[in-house]
Amino acid sequence: MNWYLQSGKEADVVLSTRIRYARNLQEFRFNMKRKEEIEAFLEKVKEETPEIGYGLKFLKLKDMDKATLISLVEKNLISPEFALNKQKNGAILLNDEENICIMINEEDHIRLQVFNCGLDLEGTYNLAKELDKKIENIFNIAKSKKYGYLTSCPTNVGTGIRASVMVHLPGLTKTGNIRKILESINSFGMNIRGVYGEKSEVSGDMYQISNKVTLGISEEKIVKNLRAITEKIIEQERLARKYLGNNQIELEDKVYRSFGILTNSRKISSEETRKLLSDVKLGTDMGIITELTDSKISKLYLYTKPANLEKYVGEELDSYDRDIKRAEVIKRIINEN
Amino acid sequence: MNWYLQSGKEADVVLSTRIRYARNLQEFRFNMKRKEEIEAFLEKVKEETPEIGYGLKFLKLKDMDKATLISLVEKNLISPEFALNKQKNGAILLNDEENICIMINEEDHIRLQVFNCGLDLEGTYNLAKELDKKIENIFNIAKSKKYGYLTSCPTNVGTGIRASVMVHLPGLTKTGNIRKILESINSFGMNIRGVYGEKSEVSGDMYQISNKVTLGISEEKIVKNLRAITEKIIEQERLARKYLGNNQIELEDKVYRSFGILTNSRKISSEETRKLLSDVKLGTDMGIITELTDSKISKLYLYTKPANLEKYVGEELDSYDRDIKRAEVIKRIINEN
Repeated sequence: MNWYLQSGKEADVVLSTRIRYARNLQEFRFNMKRKEEIEAFLEKVKEETPEIGYGLKFLKLKDMDKATLISLVEKNLISPEFALNKQKNGAILLNDEENICIMINEEDHIRLQVFNCGLDLEGTYNLAKELDKKIENIFNIAKSKKYGYLTSCPTNVGTGIRASVMVHLPGLTKTGNIRKILESINSFGMNIRGVYGEKSEVSGDMYQISNKVTLGISEEKIVKNLRAITEKIIEQERLARKYLGNNQIELEDKVYRSFGILTNSRKISSEETRKLLSDVKLGTDMGIITELTDSKISKLYLYTKPANLEKYVGEELDSYDRDIKRAEVIKRIINEN
Repeated sequence: MNWYLQSGKEADVVLSTRIRYARNLQEFRFNMKRKEEIEAFLEKVKEETPEIGYGLKFLKLKDMDKATLISLVEKNLISPEFALNKQKNGAILLNDEENICIMINEEDHIRLQVFNCGLDLEGTYNLAKELDKKIENIFNIAKSKKYGYLTSCPTNVGTGIRASVMVHLPGLTKTGNIRKILESINSFGMNIRGVYGEKSEVSGDMYQISNKVTLGISEEKIVKNLRAITEKIIEQERLARKYLGNNQIELEDKVYRSFGILTNSRKISSEETRKLLSDVKLGTDMGIITELTDSKISKLYLYTKPANLEKYVGEELDSYDRDIKRAEVIKRIINEN
């Protein structure tokens, strides 16, 4: 089963961990514009793919149908900008487990990414580092004695590493303590940003925390800092949930009403689904809702996203029919064994 | 089973029928104030109760506990004003089926009422007339050659009859056609009034239709007119539902979301319950919701009202606990066989 359908460590708060390296090849320019140059670059990567190993396959974005391409964005395997701007001349290296996804010709030549469910900064980092070494053995990676790894955008220069975790913070959101957390995290050299839905509202209480600085600090220190911050947030979130739990009836009422709407609607938007799922996940994680499992919740999160919904049902759908089908799929997933 | 837990004719629109007669005794004054006079009057009625028959029992309001008294109001067996103003010196004659309830020392000396579920103006009228004759044989009823039956308030003088039906009009409400209906009914010599909940909003799309005029028109004609108007409204309401049914998914979504909230909440107000029940009844009547029966819906309507809820669970409750208990009772009724 793919990592994004599983639940890992500290799954009540941490949905996933990602390590990303930004790497560039010496013999190609940053931000290539000429078609021939890009073609030559892609060809080189394609040739070397078997050498990298890990079951990675070279896939051009332009060979994918729209639903497949967007489904990768929805799984956070590729950035929306990459899918949009490089649909003609971008590529990825992807394995079957989809825990490794390397974007080729994104902002940097190579954006190596390793994923895992739950909180797994060490494991994810170790695999990413191993993979990065392999890549450095195969390609001539642009590096400077003074700055470290050179990148297209100066914010990534140095280690080129970006470590991030996706966290679910309904407790801190409902108690209103999220604002304090957002402010304090910034002062620890970390970024925290809400995963925005429509109308720039944070969608389903999901936040991504990642390191701000990549230069003048070791990779190990970056990963260690993020781990410390994440553990602090887990602790705060659990305290907030405990506080909410003091008014058990209010909480039960809230999460079960959301569960009732989610399981009874006949048409439902992606946005509303995420909001309701946030309550339902909270209820399940707190042992209030007993009808669901972690794995069903992961499935619900994934297969209610527009493109993954289309792939799940195997049909192209307009927006109206998608809302109807989404309500059906929710019921199907909840009722399956 | 009591009539208010059953469903009768045209039950998809008409919940109940009521015939009421206002009668006064010659030897007592309208609007008695003196305690001794009232006592003498009540004593007289009590003595004659066995003679009236129909299994009627004489019950003083002051001998009832608060929940019992209010539960009668919630069943529409007595008026809220009667329960409030005459709790010390009012009485009722009530049978076990509770389809006959005679208010004693209300605005008039005797307010004879007969009820049935669904649309049953003829049956209800016949029983009320039979009962009225019996009462007229036993008591000296105040009557004038010119005006007919004399009543405390001139709006009831003449026949003293008030025929009414309680109708559920979610279709006309949702399509916005209710306003036209409200206006046109008035011009036919009938009153239609919403059963108000909080904030003077019509509660759960329930309306009561009754005759405006009691003088210069025969009882039979009054009943016949109300029947004609009610049949017209039933027709219009069914047309409105058919129209709503053209957008089947929207309608299913609406009624099932309400069903989902109703069956999953952990605390719920009386007001919200009535709103949700209106959708759920509509869904059931239209064959969309298959989880419920007419009889369960009648039970839900009755036992979620504050005083009937307390009687159902056999406990006195404060408002907060009542909302919690209400959510439990809803689940219990829905899940029972």
